[in-house]
Amino acid sequence: MAKSLDFLTEALRRLPGVGPKSAQRMAFHLLQHDREGAAMLSRALYQAVEAVHHCALCNTFAETEVCDTCLDERRDNTMLCVVETPADQLMIEQTLTYKGLYFVLMGRLSPLDGIGPKDIHLEKLIGRAADGVVTEVVLATNFTNEGEATAHYISEMLKARGLKVSRLARGVPVGGELEYVDAGTIARAMLDRRAT
Amino acid sequence: MAKSLDFLTEALRRLPGVGPKSAQRMAFHLLQHDREGAAMLSRALYQAVEAVHHCALCNTFAETEVCDTCLDERRDNTMLCVVETPADQLMIEQTLTYKGLYFVLMGRLSPLDGIGPKDIHLEKLIGRAADGVVTEVVLATNFTNEGEATAHYISEMLKARGLKVSRLARGVPVGGELEYVDAGTIARAMLDRRAT
Repeated sequence: MAKSLDFLTEALRRLPGVGPKSAQRMAFHLLQHDREGAAMLSRALYQAVEAVHHCALCNTFAETEVCDTCLDERRDNTMLCVVETPADQLMIEQTLTYKGLYFVLMGRLSPLDGIGPKDIHLEKLIGRAADGVVTEVVLATNFTNEGEATAHYISEMLKARGLKVSRLARGVPVGGELEYVDAGTIARAMLDRRAT
Repeated sequence: MAKSLDFLTEALRRLPGVGPKSAQRMAFHLLQHDREGAAMLSRALYQAVEAVHHCALCNTFAETEVCDTCLDERRDNTMLCVVETPADQLMIEQTLTYKGLYFVLMGRLSPLDGIGPKDIHLEKLIGRAADGVVTEVVLATNFTNEGEATAHYISEMLKARGLKVSRLARGVPVGGELEYVDAGTIARAMLDRRAT
């Protein structure tokens, strides 16, 4: 087969979740039906690699030294919400329930995968949270084992520095039917029940 | 979010089978964990779009005017095997049961998708098959409805020009247990039964 086709198939396998068969199918598709798309993707990758860095304040992807969210003066700079990824931040933004600033870990603690405190930029988080303006840190890491462990670790670390730390509430999801919700979630919802 | 990140996510959606969530996950993964892979993929796409064209004889992807397979003098140039895609050709090569040449349609007839005879290069196939050297054309399109219809169409077309046309045998797959093979396949295997 053509050498640049082999190279392209090999390169497509660097995408997460793409195996040899999908890579081949993608390469054939682009060359047969969407060369314009292929050229566009090539440029987009090049540009992103060149231009995208991390925001000096919140650590998310940004093309400027400080991202637009951190620069937005209408936001409440006494609140800092810690999330694992930019996608998580977007989800929280969509709820319109939070007007503070963010810190994006770009990962979670995962000792089994060799991901320790340094890999999720905790030094940078400490510096950011201890700026004297932030009064509350909301931990919004995932409610998975790793996310919970990460939240616990950060909580201990920040409380030792005198900061107020909170965590998103756990409980039965909106629209959830008790019959189909797992027992662990119901147990947590019972323990965290609120007066009405 | 960073503009070049948006552009990258948009461009990744041009890949077949990639929706908005996967595209975002891919973009984040490349920028966070594999910038080298992203740069490599960018180059691979660019190179492939520039270098890969179609073989003048068999219509498969090639960087030269005529592909290596067509140039290989050890192959039997009296046999021509018609397949839908380069992937199908590779599968047949792996069986080591065929030593002739190929013609790659780069598709199949599919009136519902607006794919007619012109889109699968049948004019080029006629020219190739009628070169005076080819004596048998083996139809190896898929055994789907569309593949069968394509084989039928090509068969009529080439037989009208006096060429011998054959089709891969249908029947129970190797390792197949009758209990789990569909009735259509068993019916075909019964009709096509062979003396032992």
